[in-house]
Amino acid sequence: MKIAIMGYGNLGKGIECAVRQNEDMELVAVFTRRNPETVKVASGVPVYSVDKLPEMKDKIDVLMMCGGSATDLPKQTAEYAKYFNVIDSFDTHAKIPEHFANVDKAAKEGGKIAMISVGWDPGMFSLNRLYANAILRDGSDYTFWGKGVSQGHSDAIRRIPGVKDAKQYTIPVESALEAVRNCENPVLTTRQKHTRECFVVAEEGADKAWIENQIKTMPNYFADYDTTVHFITEEELKRDHAGIPHGGFVLRTGKTGLNGEHNHVIEYSLKLDSNPEFTACVLVAYARAAYRMNQEGMKGCKTVFDVAPAYLSPMTAEEMRSKLL
Amino acid sequence: MKIAIMGYGNLGKGIECAVRQNEDMELVAVFTRRNPETVKVASGVPVYSVDKLPEMKDKIDVLMMCGGSATDLPKQTAEYAKYFNVIDSFDTHAKIPEHFANVDKAAKEGGKIAMISVGWDPGMFSLNRLYANAILRDGSDYTFWGKGVSQGHSDAIRRIPGVKDAKQYTIPVESALEAVRNCENPVLTTRQKHTRECFVVAEEGADKAWIENQIKTMPNYFADYDTTVHFITEEELKRDHAGIPHGGFVLRTGKTGLNGEHNHVIEYSLKLDSNPEFTACVLVAYARAAYRMNQEGMKGCKTVFDVAPAYLSPMTAEEMRSKLL
Repeated sequence: MKIAIMGYGNLGKGIECAVRQNEDMELVAVFTRRNPETVKVASGVPVYSVDKLPEMKDKIDVLMMCGGSATDLPKQTAEYAKYFNVIDSFDTHAKIPEHFANVDKAAKEGGKIAMISVGWDPGMFSLNRLYANAILRDGSDYTFWGKGVSQGHSDAIRRIPGVKDAKQYTIPVESALEAVRNCENPVLTTRQKHTRECFVVAEEGADKAWIENQIKTMPNYFADYDTTVHFITEEELKRDHAGIPHGGFVLRTGKTGLNGEHNHVIEYSLKLDSNPEFTACVLVAYARAAYRMNQEGMKGCKTVFDVAPAYLSPMTAEEMRSKLL
Repeated sequence: MKIAIMGYGNLGKGIECAVRQNEDMELVAVFTRRNPETVKVASGVPVYSVDKLPEMKDKIDVLMMCGGSATDLPKQTAEYAKYFNVIDSFDTHAKIPEHFANVDKAAKEGGKIAMISVGWDPGMFSLNRLYANAILRDGSDYTFWGKGVSQGHSDAIRRIPGVKDAKQYTIPVESALEAVRNCENPVLTTRQKHTRECFVVAEEGADKAWIENQIKTMPNYFADYDTTVHFITEEELKRDHAGIPHGGFVLRTGKTGLNGEHNHVIEYSLKLDSNPEFTACVLVAYARAAYRMNQEGMKGCKTVFDVAPAYLSPMTAEEMRSKLL
């Protein structure tokens, strides 16, 4: 399977690593909107300008779309789904129906498979919500995120005047998680589910009390949460907060029995040292599925809900049944 | 969707409850090898002798096979797959290839879908092993069972002379689970993974020390485990150990990055008050899938690996994308 990467940021670099762990795949090229000569790739594969993509049509089995959900993917995925099997990690939830429709049209025109919103949330978390809902029909859903770095919240802090750099961690409230696991069916407010912890490097002479207040009262991002702010040095930020860890929990609790007398808890959780590298691993597994499904004649836009699990594994059906079932 | 139950034991009763939680399904009949007049069903649906099954061919969309894996399912699933879409929970791991081949032949002849080995292990645990293996290619798998009642181990104790009744709990070793979660990649012996706790009602005058020794030294069942034996009264057994709880944990840990520098943990767990009722819920969700896949023209033997998740949910594709993705 010949894989190419469109966009060489954190996710693209993660794809590069992930492909090397899959013997049935080969990374053939990285495409960039930057000057290709300025992009150094770890694996030494050729780096091309995005303009060269159309002429590579027959040399790539799956194109991994590694741009952002805000402006890149809404254009790019549909554009390239005409020529390539593509995978993206589009995560702007409210715009998924529109994105799906655009991409579906393009992929069907091109006779290709386009998988959108692949990753862990949306992605593996979505799958677990679906399975758990199909099984426990009378129940409640809970999703907790963290402990992990929220890029959006870190960026929001960095935009405050006087802030040089910042990193924000989203942390699930342990007592809320426990109440869910105990089948107490808690109704949880935003504040009761997650806390936010911020590590901030202030510019010299900045008013730290004012910055802290700006953070804690910021609408949407922090005002509805119990937020802790730590001021640290630039060195400390680099030393202790360089990683991009993340993770979270998807739970469904539900009742069965003639009178709902039995409780059940289904829990799925992830603890990830590197959010982009794990996301990349999920995308690469779905690249295998996209390629195989297209080989079987399928086309159009798909999500993780549409993919039979067997397509994801390099094993044969017999091997899967004997080793994993 | 018209559902029928073949075999009215714990699993069959669970199916009866589960169908009532699904608005798109209706339980139309229970079939039994016993005298139908002796079988009382909670929902009041008709109970028929198994001999009447062939003439119901056009009145049933999916037949739920609720017999045992030892002798019932190896015969019955293949037999009825010629006439009905069927679901079973066949769990004799070593015989899955043979069972698959027999059932596949029958289902293809009949133009039906036959899903085998559905439940939670095999079933949801298998699915999680597959997904996690496809994502984290460089890693280790762990499955822990419990805390829960093992029917096989309880039966083994009951066969010891002087034992009136018994219940055995399989319990995962918490420190082993923690070592896995901490990415220590432990190599665990049987003894290090699970302990066994037995509650035994001895017959009057029985030699309890001898019984305890018989249990603890029983090959395959107990000799390789740290086993605790409690002697209790028949009343205590009924009062405190009447349930059939179970559950467990599927974990995969793995590395990513250019030099394997990042660790990741994927964990799936179940905590079930009633093992048969939960298993029944999984079977019913796969009944929906079997019916739909057959409506689309698919046929033959399938496992959970072959079923796109969307087939399990009563929601439309649009609803799923907006509510679960």
